[in-house]
Amino acid sequence: MSGTLYGVGVGPGDPELITLKALRVLERTSIIAWPAPPEGDSLARRIAAPHLNGDKTEIAIRMPIEAGRFPDQRVYDTAADEIATHLAAGRDVAVLCEGDPFFYGSFMYLFGRLAQDHTVQVVPGISSLTASAAALGAPLAARNDTLAILPATLPDAELEARLRSIDAAVFIKVGRHLGRLRRLLKRLGLAADAHYIEHATMADQRTQLLREVPDERAPYFSMVLVHRRGEAWT
Amino acid sequence: MSGTLYGVGVGPGDPELITLKALRVLERTSIIAWPAPPEGDSLARRIAAPHLNGDKTEIAIRMPIEAGRFPDQRVYDTAADEIATHLAAGRDVAVLCEGDPFFYGSFMYLFGRLAQDHTVQVVPGISSLTASAAALGAPLAARNDTLAILPATLPDAELEARLRSIDAAVFIKVGRHLGRLRRLLKRLGLAADAHYIEHATMADQRTQLLREVPDERAPYFSMVLVHRRGEAWT
Repeated sequence: MSGTLYGVGVGPGDPELITLKALRVLERTSIIAWPAPPEGDSLARRIAAPHLNGDKTEIAIRMPIEAGRFPDQRVYDTAADEIATHLAAGRDVAVLCEGDPFFYGSFMYLFGRLAQDHTVQVVPGISSLTASAAALGAPLAARNDTLAILPATLPDAELEARLRSIDAAVFIKVGRHLGRLRRLLKRLGLAADAHYIEHATMADQRTQLLREVPDERAPYFSMVLVHRRGEAWT
Repeated sequence: MSGTLYGVGVGPGDPELITLKALRVLERTSIIAWPAPPEGDSLARRIAAPHLNGDKTEIAIRMPIEAGRFPDQRVYDTAADEIATHLAAGRDVAVLCEGDPFFYGSFMYLFGRLAQDHTVQVVPGISSLTASAAALGAPLAARNDTLAILPATLPDAELEARLRSIDAAVFIKVGRHLGRLRRLLKRLGLAADAHYIEHATMADQRTQLLREVPDERAPYFSMVLVHRRGEAWT
């Protein structure tokens, strides 16, 4: 009897924004894996920490962060091998995922390596998308609005082309693109109601109107929300 | 001391997909409001039912469903007045919202009427967006993918224009547009990997490859997920 691989969304940061289903999976799974930087804390593990009971075997997936490049895939090969050994022995494994496992999450690298030969269940989590809108008091989209999720890492011309045909947009991975994005939205007349947020739902959450943010750079996990018609709910 | 209005995301259908934070708000709030059709059950209330404790005052917001039209706003005027009376008397009110309150939710009509004069807190919920991806085992987006949420109610030409510049798309409100959407995606060469899902995470959930769904119509809350490069995680 082979074990099940769970991709568990632990939500955006506030440990209360975890689901009952995620809690149940974490309670009964004795092997957990989590992504982390080369040294130090895992954000996903930190979010789940208040909910971790009993002795667990923990697998750290430590990924070098290289600005502007996607990570060396061999780290996932190694982690997938270790996880597969447990699954083959009939042991379930839960991978802790910040936000939602399938919304720009690194879980999909493990999913891609393991889903063909193993049972995989994904427990959806509160994504930074809806958590940021809630924290800002700014509805994302309504009625027949079209909404785009746009990585701020894309060049100006590509962002501009997509913004032209869309009612509302959420920029993810703002990071070092903050100043450029602010100038682009200003030029397109979209800066007035654009909202900036970093560390949504965490103790160090910061929210501001984008036009009042002076910085050129932001933390990687910061976002900008914009709506073409101003406020979506009017 | 004025009361607080809570917009509480109760998730997509499975009562386990509610957050600890939503539970805490529901436990300590004695007045709840929920949207419902003119007669019969409220889906939002049905999702929250296993978690409702004690005696609560309940406010039904019964909204006539008129195909192809947005609802008569006077229903929200009346509901907002009733809710405002409680808030002014210092009583908190929790509005139950299917999925997430700010992701195409009707909560924003109450928000628009009450946020200026009252304290409002939004508790984000698992949206059908990430719940459907989890149920399908189909990652939404990865890396620098652009992702669009597109109401299937829009005309073919508008959907086509938006699909041209986007890597992945989720069609919401598929309903009576199912047949038309299937033909559009086929013509654009995007039908091969398009996934169909209705009643995500509920007992009567149904998932299928879109090209194998013969129907012309679907339930209103059905969705289609598509990724231009086939599978997002490869």
